[in-house]
Amino acid sequence: MSAAAPTLYEQLAEELADGIRDGVLRAGERLPSVRQTCRQRGISPSTVFQAYGQLESDGLIEARARSGFFVRADRPAARAAPRAAEPRHDATPVAVSELVFELLGSTRDADVVPLGSAFPAPHLFPFEALARSGARAMRRLKPAQITGALTVGESQLRQALRHRCTLQGVPLADDELVITNGAMEALNLCLQAVTRPGDVVVVESPTFYAALQALERLDLRAVEVQTDPRDGVDLEALEALLDRQPVAACWFMPSFQNPLGALMPVARKQALVERLARRAIPLIEDDVYGELYSGTRRPPPAKAFDRAGLVLHCASFSKSLAPGYRVGWAAAGRFAPVVQRLKTMTSLATSLPPQLAIADYLAQGGYDRHLRRLREALAVQQQRALRLIERHFPAGTRVTRPAGGYFLWLELPAGVDALQLHRQAMARSISTAPGVLFSADRRFTHHLRLNVGHPDDPRFESALRQLGELAHEAMAAAP
Amino acid sequence: MSAAAPTLYEQLAEELADGIRDGVLRAGERLPSVRQTCRQRGISPSTVFQAYGQLESDGLIEARARSGFFVRADRPAARAAPRAAEPRHDATPVAVSELVFELLGSTRDADVVPLGSAFPAPHLFPFEALARSGARAMRRLKPAQITGALTVGESQLRQALRHRCTLQGVPLADDELVITNGAMEALNLCLQAVTRPGDVVVVESPTFYAALQALERLDLRAVEVQTDPRDGVDLEALEALLDRQPVAACWFMPSFQNPLGALMPVARKQALVERLARRAIPLIEDDVYGELYSGTRRPPPAKAFDRAGLVLHCASFSKSLAPGYRVGWAAAGRFAPVVQRLKTMTSLATSLPPQLAIADYLAQGGYDRHLRRLREALAVQQQRALRLIERHFPAGTRVTRPAGGYFLWLELPAGVDALQLHRQAMARSISTAPGVLFSADRRFTHHLRLNVGHPDDPRFESALRQLGELAHEAMAAAP
Repeated sequence: MSAAAPTLYEQLAEELADGIRDGVLRAGERLPSVRQTCRQRGISPSTVFQAYGQLESDGLIEARARSGFFVRADRPAARAAPRAAEPRHDATPVAVSELVFELLGSTRDADVVPLGSAFPAPHLFPFEALARSGARAMRRLKPAQITGALTVGESQLRQALRHRCTLQGVPLADDELVITNGAMEALNLCLQAVTRPGDVVVVESPTFYAALQALERLDLRAVEVQTDPRDGVDLEALEALLDRQPVAACWFMPSFQNPLGALMPVARKQALVERLARRAIPLIEDDVYGELYSGTRRPPPAKAFDRAGLVLHCASFSKSLAPGYRVGWAAAGRFAPVVQRLKTMTSLATSLPPQLAIADYLAQGGYDRHLRRLREALAVQQQRALRLIERHFPAGTRVTRPAGGYFLWLELPAGVDALQLHRQAMARSISTAPGVLFSADRRFTHHLRLNVGHPDDPRFESALRQLGELAHEAMAAAP
Repeated sequence: MSAAAPTLYEQLAEELADGIRDGVLRAGERLPSVRQTCRQRGISPSTVFQAYGQLESDGLIEARARSGFFVRADRPAARAAPRAAEPRHDATPVAVSELVFELLGSTRDADVVPLGSAFPAPHLFPFEALARSGARAMRRLKPAQITGALTVGESQLRQALRHRCTLQGVPLADDELVITNGAMEALNLCLQAVTRPGDVVVVESPTFYAALQALERLDLRAVEVQTDPRDGVDLEALEALLDRQPVAACWFMPSFQNPLGALMPVARKQALVERLARRAIPLIEDDVYGELYSGTRRPPPAKAFDRAGLVLHCASFSKSLAPGYRVGWAAAGRFAPVVQRLKTMTSLATSLPPQLAIADYLAQGGYDRHLRRLREALAVQQQRALRLIERHFPAGTRVTRPAGGYFLWLELPAGVDALQLHRQAMARSISTAPGVLFSADRRFTHHLRLNVGHPDDPRFESALRQLGELAHEAMAAAP
């Protein structure tokens, strides 16, 4: 439905994926080499690598050392993807908090299998190296740095972030960056910077419950836009919605959306930024999962296409490097001065020791190596989960196959009450995140978000089997 | 004006202070020993020590090792205290932020003498010991702690805080405490927990500009209550004000108020809490300076008298132990669940490494030793500043003599424009905090807050002399 044409690599990947699904390319078959494909099609090696990376992360092909790319034998069976939902057209005041606190409050017990958790397993992160970095940085800390850093954040970290963003195609202005207490604070500050109570904000459908809570806290109204489980926000639906009513901002997660895992294709991201710029509508971009891609390269954030200073880019190290450190940032474009002032007024500054620890860790150069291992672990676990779901869940269950992040979104057969399923699972010490959490008007009643970011949890397989059994029972009992 | 009767120690201190000011007790004269005084008056030694401590911190007497207490020869001359101002009676929307950012933005340069700063000198704090504690705690950190801590804060630190509060006569309920990103976040969360946009909140007069900014951010209206520069909020004035209009909350700083340094006597604090409880009005208590007393014991926070769960006690380690660590807390009484939810929604959790560092430091047992040194350094510098002000400022300058904290509040002769004085001083690389920052309706035009928390700054004496000269010139030019 998007007006944005697919890129060359997307065309190639789609073509090969069709061939694999249709059986034209058979399991175990070797794909043409990168060099061959370049010659044949007159495209660059990086385009081919990108397409193969996409297919690899979709679980359709695999790379074998020094032999090339092969169609996988054990690729996930063809569970269909969930369908995009048609949201209500009118803006609704948000009151989802009570439900969120009720459902999530009970899922943090260590004895509960954390399929409903929002976090990956902490042992995936380099806490020892971070502690060494922290100790080193704190020894070197000069008292004068304390008063120097304050609101905008520690200068070495800001510089490292700007450097990294520039390498990823997102040049940031010198004074655009504010270090925050995690992405959550960044998003809240940005939201407050561009809205007044009563304003309408467009969110995805389904959307991350914390976005709904943030809207609720600031007395804003949400309007949900149709969102494809694979490709993200539907631009035509968005245009129609913006024609209907004044909108103060959009809050989207263009890369590995929570809960869908949707990744907006590059061209669609660019079109989104350009269309919003024509209407002068700010885009709050939640990019906390951007580094957790399973393909060959980091998807560019929407911020990469921001010419008008209207994209408020928010991210953090909480999902990629240092959970619990609460170090995030906002690159808020033309709203940066407002965001800085709000930061001063709400929490003055971000804690210095964790900023120094991360800055030192980044300077040591191990971040990308860590990220490669992390992505690999998450991708492997996703494949494992998809096979278990295929085996244990009722026919008609649809599931996403995201190219990054660590969530799966399940559409159970209609009639299955996912909230009841959640409660039954909790009685067996298995948490889930039922779909009603992800909508201002309690839709997605037969949907579940499952966390597949706990690769070494021995209870995982049994938990998915039990969930599947519960879903079977629910179906049998459904009207 | 307070209905609260003075305590025994306050009566004794006041009596002796009168004797010194009237010349009945002469410079160099030895005061009766503690034992004598106990016998004579039938009071306890701790009461006498408290009274002598008060007189000592007021600069009227000094302790000499093994000889007792003596009336000081060099005691600050009798600069009168500033007068309490009569605030406007109607609530005003707040718009002080622009001015605050304009004036304070320029004062953070290391080349500027920081008389306008809100922070004490960073070298007064045990950063090396904290770094060692941080390194030790981070080595011991188990990944599972990451997900365990989350919103309410790290359990070891919460336990240490509750222990300390209990020793100080403030027993906290088990689930009342939320660790925050400094006191600023705690205060903001508490304010949001007890108000709705448009509500009226009572603040002191003058009041800390960050309180005014917090009100502004949440679209609240401020009404200022008459506040005595020595004894704090006037309870009769407060009653009159509460009779006139519905009020959602009070935001006060009962110990060493910023900017006045006022300390509400114990009985007045208790009466304040009881009177507000009768009207079911929440009290947001900013207690960030409570540990910085120059007397013999920590003044109890208003929270010590809270029977109704209506006192939301906020404090931090930023002024007493670990600036830049941004570790504070709210003990929010019956509003604790709301504050916890708001914390989750605004910044999810407080950074773990600084919490662990402080918890380890507290467990090592050096905190009280550090605090004694810090208090001593601040008290000495206050005396030094008072003597310099006496020497260099125009006759008619009034100045506070707070029993804690590190601010002085100057009332310059009427007609001196303190904002202009601030700008002239900035041109000489000396910052100040002009009085207009401390009021929603820009009163206190001939007042200044001066930071005396930088004991070893060699530029201090010259800066105060220059400020005095500028004040003389301003007076000469005044209409």
